[in-house]
Amino acid sequence: MEGDFVALHFDVEVKYLVQKNVTKRRRRSPDERKGASLKFIPLGGVGGIGKNISVLEYGDDILVIDCGLMFPDEEMLGVDFVIPDPAYLLANKERIRGMVITHGHDDHIGALPYILPELDCPIYATRLTLGLIRSRMEERAPKYELKAKEIQAGDVIDLGCFKVQPFSVCHSIPDGVGYAIHTPLGVVLHTGDFKLDPTPIDGRATDYALLASLGTKGVLLMLSDSTNVERDGFTPSERMVGKTMEQTFRLYKNKRIIISSFASNLHRVQQVIETAVRFNRKVALIGRSMIANVARARELGYMGVDDDVFIQPSEIEGFPNNRLVVITTGSQGEPFSGLVLMSRGDHRFIKLGPKDLVVISALPIPGNERLVHRTINDLFKQGCEVIYEAEQNIHVSGHASREELKMMLSLIKPSYFVPLHGEYRHLVKHKQLAEEMGVPAKNAFVMEEGDVLSITKRQARISGKVPAGAYIVDGRTYGDMKGGLLGERKGLAEEGVFCISVVLDSSGNVIAPLSIESRGFLHRVDADELYRQIEDAVEKAVKAFAREKRERKDEDLASRIRSAIKGVLRRYSLSSPVILVLINEVKENAILSGLAGREYAK
Amino acid sequence: MEGDFVALHFDVEVKYLVQKNVTKRRRRSPDERKGASLKFIPLGGVGGIGKNISVLEYGDDILVIDCGLMFPDEEMLGVDFVIPDPAYLLANKERIRGMVITHGHDDHIGALPYILPELDCPIYATRLTLGLIRSRMEERAPKYELKAKEIQAGDVIDLGCFKVQPFSVCHSIPDGVGYAIHTPLGVVLHTGDFKLDPTPIDGRATDYALLASLGTKGVLLMLSDSTNVERDGFTPSERMVGKTMEQTFRLYKNKRIIISSFASNLHRVQQVIETAVRFNRKVALIGRSMIANVARARELGYMGVDDDVFIQPSEIEGFPNNRLVVITTGSQGEPFSGLVLMSRGDHRFIKLGPKDLVVISALPIPGNERLVHRTINDLFKQGCEVIYEAEQNIHVSGHASREELKMMLSLIKPSYFVPLHGEYRHLVKHKQLAEEMGVPAKNAFVMEEGDVLSITKRQARISGKVPAGAYIVDGRTYGDMKGGLLGERKGLAEEGVFCISVVLDSSGNVIAPLSIESRGFLHRVDADELYRQIEDAVEKAVKAFAREKRERKDEDLASRIRSAIKGVLRRYSLSSPVILVLINEVKENAILSGLAGREYAK
Repeated sequence: MEGDFVALHFDVEVKYLVQKNVTKRRRRSPDERKGASLKFIPLGGVGGIGKNISVLEYGDDILVIDCGLMFPDEEMLGVDFVIPDPAYLLANKERIRGMVITHGHDDHIGALPYILPELDCPIYATRLTLGLIRSRMEERAPKYELKAKEIQAGDVIDLGCFKVQPFSVCHSIPDGVGYAIHTPLGVVLHTGDFKLDPTPIDGRATDYALLASLGTKGVLLMLSDSTNVERDGFTPSERMVGKTMEQTFRLYKNKRIIISSFASNLHRVQQVIETAVRFNRKVALIGRSMIANVARARELGYMGVDDDVFIQPSEIEGFPNNRLVVITTGSQGEPFSGLVLMSRGDHRFIKLGPKDLVVISALPIPGNERLVHRTINDLFKQGCEVIYEAEQNIHVSGHASREELKMMLSLIKPSYFVPLHGEYRHLVKHKQLAEEMGVPAKNAFVMEEGDVLSITKRQARISGKVPAGAYIVDGRTYGDMKGGLLGERKGLAEEGVFCISVVLDSSGNVIAPLSIESRGFLHRVDADELYRQIEDAVEKAVKAFAREKRERKDEDLASRIRSAIKGVLRRYSLSSPVILVLINEVKENAILSGLAGREYAK
Repeated sequence: MEGDFVALHFDVEVKYLVQKNVTKRRRRSPDERKGASLKFIPLGGVGGIGKNISVLEYGDDILVIDCGLMFPDEEMLGVDFVIPDPAYLLANKERIRGMVITHGHDDHIGALPYILPELDCPIYATRLTLGLIRSRMEERAPKYELKAKEIQAGDVIDLGCFKVQPFSVCHSIPDGVGYAIHTPLGVVLHTGDFKLDPTPIDGRATDYALLASLGTKGVLLMLSDSTNVERDGFTPSERMVGKTMEQTFRLYKNKRIIISSFASNLHRVQQVIETAVRFNRKVALIGRSMIANVARARELGYMGVDDDVFIQPSEIEGFPNNRLVVITTGSQGEPFSGLVLMSRGDHRFIKLGPKDLVVISALPIPGNERLVHRTINDLFKQGCEVIYEAEQNIHVSGHASREELKMMLSLIKPSYFVPLHGEYRHLVKHKQLAEEMGVPAKNAFVMEEGDVLSITKRQARISGKVPAGAYIVDGRTYGDMKGGLLGERKGLAEEGVFCISVVLDSSGNVIAPLSIESRGFLHRVDADELYRQIEDAVEKAVKAFAREKRERKDEDLASRIRSAIKGVLRRYSLSSPVILVLINEVKENAILSGLAGREYAK
């Protein structure tokens, strides 16, 4: 299949063909020929937060860890989300022994509907994680039948030459695991997303005993979460939030309480529900993902709450204020989310006012600040009280801070270290931290997507690069980020579009008045004068082109006309919209016979 | 002029006509007829950070305070910046006795080039502020001759019935003032942007003595900066940054040091230069506004530094690393700024590497986080050390925190209070703070743009609204925010544009193949099939339209064709680009005679 087209057949209507020159197997280095080299390749999750996916290879065996998506930044205009480029996995799919997943957040499972059906390999995850994966697949790839295996901490799974041992880690979603992967060269330890909360809500702490015993026996390579490497100290326990909730419920005992959080933060949701029960309040859930996640967690036994705690959204209005808690999505100010609709007075089931307290139990993800602040401003305009980021302990992170990262490094004492899950600066800071903890600088690697780290018994080094990068998903269409799409949209966004059609006869004469349309372009004054100048410019361009008697190609003429118009617009308004020129040629007999262009063209 | 067109004649090439129904003088209330009412109208600077401008009115006299711009958020696609709607001032310009300016930041002076030439009133500011105003005017309204009066703290200026008394306030730019405005009803106190730094760099502290004495005599209305109302405690002194700089220079004595800051933060720049001199380093300035502001400050005597401290940017490379400090713009990650060019290796005078330390001496303004973080990541990729927001005391704010706001309220003890300079939530929090400090809730007002606060001897109340809002400036064109421009650009940005031209004869037959262009729209697969489907749809639409034998209007036909295409694209790719349909009609004799369309049309 070398140099061939790789077709991605997903359960979506439009298929997008990608030409990739991916060598199925790279040329083997001396190490490889001896069969003694272990390879680690992050295909995503380094140099940016999100789309986590890593590959571990030894001989003929490949193990994939996680398969997440990334939310687009503002410059990715109109893009729904971003997934990892699957080319390398597709080209090597028959070597993939399985995929293991650390936890059920979208940045670790969200790309599965787009990539897993193509790989069609077995997938391993804990019960709740698998439940959330099933939800994603049902939504976006309903025809694919998962080859899923439920696992739990303590299991050992044989995948080719790899013995994979999941272990408990504590994070902002239940049932998270890290993996100790026993390879012929030694143990690879992947922390997953973790914190070292000593008092977790579900009593399921990060497994220090196992980590310590692995560390004592010796770990070859450690892969660790870098998200919070810029934060000093320890991340507070999730229970802190519970205490703050308790105080808040006591202080605002006559108000209706609305709490917004991530739908996936089931520990948080559970704490709110438990506090509500203690304060004799009922709970209403708002937001599709909030309702779905709570249902999934209860169905799988992750949330022991009676049915009669809940009321329907339609029952909210009329229910006594001091007897009700509403839990909703929208903590990131997402348009059309529960909280945002409420903040604008547009929610059909709930109208906010001075009787309400709104608690935003989350921090804005970098880049979402303006949306979140706008939502807070709008909530104040509705007259309600709002508790948000400025206040203490209404949110804690799910990721380890510097002291926890140091503790993890001191437990594991790895021979080699690769920081994962961070932007470039996080990875550099985490590498520096590892050096402080005794990992030699030459054994800690800041990697970029597609980099291949080759480890032999004697050494580790970046030995090459495989194709990796980002795919954009836009509606049911998706494609390579490198395409011109985003650049084109940026041009349209900033300057608007100016569109003109020119009708010529076959001798190249203009035979109809120009037709012009524009959008997003300020030209409302002196439109007649602008039109006259453009007519002049187009006519001159057409005539000059004809005079040169070169063989006429519509493209050449169009670009000539485009330049002429560009000059007029620049002089006229100092603006440079995207200019589209449509050339239409009418053959003489078409008009005489009254034939449709299409028939004529045949 | 009631209901008339108001033409804005600025020193720009394009004029944009605005139709405004602004009553020149509102119908007088009973208060007004007695001549006993003082009015305060914020035309900007409330409900958003930026474009600060306020109006004070009594009888026939109007005083304007500040005239700033606002930087656009990401949703204002391609907009350079936003200025206040000047309609109310234009309609009442003959009553304006003058404009007074608090300090030289763009959110207080940036709209002057667009608005002042129209009002043509005298403008009062301190020396440095006036210098910066002159720079702005030279850049953007060079033909207008300023009626400028230099003032200083301690002066008293008579403007109609108002006696205006500027007083020193400390802020992140030198020469800032607040105003005590003596009116027939009592004193109005405008704090400007301020902090209560006890150890300011220029020894010019906020004038507590005057504030205390005004407070003792009684202040009618206090208008106060709300920017930092969410921050507890006191804002640290600017001198803290000096100490941190000192330590940094000591610690990194063998590195070349690059420091990025706001060009307007002249105290900061001065501290860096003084530290450089103490450590026997030369200084190079990078960035147009950095060079211009330092030149202006030195020329006006605000920065006592010898010429031989500076070297030219072209001399940077080759200069010994440990003898040089580079001060540059770009602390907000602005594209094409000094620091961003360096971070990408694109600056023509300086190449960064492991020999460099970069200090970003500013915090990201909310909304700029991603740009700033990208710049930091890129700097790490260049291999340099970077000190940024995560570190302590490399930046302090220029605005008062909660304890300072409380101190100001306790000094002034105003009868009425209006928080300015903040988003809605800041204003609400500042009103709550004033209430804690003893201002009765009914005497503190959260105002929106254009709200009129009427104060008589007996009471104050919001008595009405005048036109106010935002104008966008885009190249040399500007217009009302409410226009469809931004909505149009959003559509183009998110979905792209699909453009088609149809050529008809006068009987409505399609007489040429369709011509199609698109941008920013994913349709690269099966383009032929898409084209065929569109041809079918257009043909059907044209025929159906003809059958109905209604009088043909190109708009009706175009919208019919647009709907047909919309359906095809939606089915084809679940996408909905902006669709532009250009209809061209060719008259029979045009083609026979070979006449150009334009001549034919005559």
